[in-house]
Amino acid sequence: MENFSYYVPTEIYFGEGSIQQLSDAVARYGDKVLLVYGGGSIKKIGLYKKVKSLLKDVTIHELSGVEPNPRLESVVNGVNLCKENDIQVVLAVGGGSTIDCAKAICAGMYYDGNPWDFIEDSNLITEALPLISVLTLSATGSEMDATAVITNPELKLKKGFGHRTLFPKVSIMDPTYTYSVSKYQTASGTADIMSHIMETYFNDGEISQVSNQISVSLLKTCLRYGKIAYNEPENYEARANMMWTSSLAINGLTGCGVGKKWSCHAMEHVLSAYYDVTHGAGLAMLTPRWMEYILDGSTVDKFASYGRDVWGLEGTNDMAIAKIAIQKTKEFFESLDLPMTFEAIGIPEDAPVEEMAASATASKGGKIDGYRELSTQDVINIYRMCM
Amino acid sequence: MENFSYYVPTEIYFGEGSIQQLSDAVARYGDKVLLVYGGGSIKKIGLYKKVKSLLKDVTIHELSGVEPNPRLESVVNGVNLCKENDIQVVLAVGGGSTIDCAKAICAGMYYDGNPWDFIEDSNLITEALPLISVLTLSATGSEMDATAVITNPELKLKKGFGHRTLFPKVSIMDPTYTYSVSKYQTASGTADIMSHIMETYFNDGEISQVSNQISVSLLKTCLRYGKIAYNEPENYEARANMMWTSSLAINGLTGCGVGKKWSCHAMEHVLSAYYDVTHGAGLAMLTPRWMEYILDGSTVDKFASYGRDVWGLEGTNDMAIAKIAIQKTKEFFESLDLPMTFEAIGIPEDAPVEEMAASATASKGGKIDGYRELSTQDVINIYRMCM
Repeated sequence: MENFSYYVPTEIYFGEGSIQQLSDAVARYGDKVLLVYGGGSIKKIGLYKKVKSLLKDVTIHELSGVEPNPRLESVVNGVNLCKENDIQVVLAVGGGSTIDCAKAICAGMYYDGNPWDFIEDSNLITEALPLISVLTLSATGSEMDATAVITNPELKLKKGFGHRTLFPKVSIMDPTYTYSVSKYQTASGTADIMSHIMETYFNDGEISQVSNQISVSLLKTCLRYGKIAYNEPENYEARANMMWTSSLAINGLTGCGVGKKWSCHAMEHVLSAYYDVTHGAGLAMLTPRWMEYILDGSTVDKFASYGRDVWGLEGTNDMAIAKIAIQKTKEFFESLDLPMTFEAIGIPEDAPVEEMAASATASKGGKIDGYRELSTQDVINIYRMCM
Repeated sequence: MENFSYYVPTEIYFGEGSIQQLSDAVARYGDKVLLVYGGGSIKKIGLYKKVKSLLKDVTIHELSGVEPNPRLESVVNGVNLCKENDIQVVLAVGGGSTIDCAKAICAGMYYDGNPWDFIEDSNLITEALPLISVLTLSATGSEMDATAVITNPELKLKKGFGHRTLFPKVSIMDPTYTYSVSKYQTASGTADIMSHIMETYFNDGEISQVSNQISVSLLKTCLRYGKIAYNEPENYEARANMMWTSSLAINGLTGCGVGKKWSCHAMEHVLSAYYDVTHGAGLAMLTPRWMEYILDGSTVDKFASYGRDVWGLEGTNDMAIAKIAIQKTKEFFESLDLPMTFEAIGIPEDAPVEEMAASATASKGGKIDGYRELSTQDVINIYRMCM
């Protein structure tokens, strides 16, 4: 087992009706609130009205219209609102994009200059406003971690950053808020959650059985309840299991004692930055191709364990089990009607694949330092498997 | 899934050498430290000297000799030391007993009166000194939760209490510190960890697959590495997996969304209070008898799942699988040479079983409100199964 540190101070209130905790939670931090949200979905489900009624004694400023891949411009607008109005607490109501944008705003309050600076170098962050989140989409896990991903359209870059001051202080998680999430977003969210678990599960470093077995259990929960949530949007058990799994998938728990070499996220972030691809859908498309690409004598053991433990496959031929497991992974995403090719996902035939691959490997000097190291050419090859 | 809240703000530094984080951790909270420890084991393994050398710029007062079932008297002594010396941070170096005692001391600093008051009614706690722990025994999980158990020998009572101010701020977990733990304490610790998981796993309330599957994965880790740690005391992987599992078993993770009706702990606490029985050993003796006692048509499903998921049993006859699973649980504890009868564990033949059972059910008005409700007579019957 590798040495690790683990720190997740977010307070979770989970379950139907947990929004009732909101007033107390906000009151702990102040009475000048910036309410951050995306499109109109929180209005459609009545959540906007509920939040306003619970916070009627509080001064609320609003930043709406946060994009699905949140842009630097929204962060800048939010920071300006905070500085102009002496905001004391930021309240993000929405999915991971909204929470991510809010995290950057929280850090921006105490930074003089362009927020992109600290997105590129989180050492520049010293302090942050307290953040409270009300989650409406099970996917990114941003409600219980200290990281965020922001897109800079000018630079065609989508960058993740993190800082220990950026954990939400409180996250309210009511699975019924995800009942109205579209089938496509539900499926993409499931793929995103599974990818977070798999990025850690498939690792080249030392093994920690306790973490690996937790990953297996979370993946099995996704296979069961991801499917049910897709088919029965108002199934509470399914929505609840997926919501809690989304948090546990990426709050550090599955990575305790194991390596941190992620593979697919870097390849996907480029697709989102260039073509505004839904993150989870991009991951669903890339992951089985990446698995297929790196399957060889040196990785077959791990993929065979994956097949046996997660998919319940039996038999003694490791390579055969590994191949079936990868095929089943692809079929699972297909069964959620996720687009599995560039064309289906909206990336044109003449996409600058070489340029995109170079972008994916740029931050590590021409490679992705994943479970297996991937060169720019490897990334091109994996992109081409999706064409 | 039931509604739940989850909050575990303890910062963990895990792995060989993680003691190097101690100076920084203490410095965050002050320079007047109360060092709390038990017998001489931390001196034998060189940890006492290491701690002193890392904290050479800090004023240290000491409370040593904390008992395996920590007594109220130690708490009172610790509180007095804190008040007399304006202690700013309490540093517990040891196992769960030492950390539990330190928690009560942390709360006692801000309470005027006998600490037993707030042990009986945690609402009396308002504030607590910051606590840092260095763990040397994998068992109670006290290093990552906000509860403690204190024994009042005069009243023959062993009582648990908790408060959100009592999470250790930082816990340092170096598996090599457990290399010298005796075989008996290693086995008892494994049984304690397993009991924490099973108390939650066997629950009558709603089910949360995500939590249940995590419990299964943690139990499987115990079966594998509990045995290895017992046979190979210096096996790092085994000690590390058991240490991290000890924390996850009881920090609330396995209980998210499921009921909180524990069964065996109340029966065991009485044995410890009357005869200073090692907590984990008492649990190992009681648990299979309790399982056997409550196995019937209404519980067979759960025990059969336990048999299939945790023990890998196969077959279609649920009752047969349930019985084998219970038998295997007993055999596992026997394989760790744990005493499985009153006589072997040191409880005399003429123990006042009726009085003890009444004590076990006293706080809930004559019953244990567990997975299956147990009357005082049920507890007597289960005790008698151990004779």
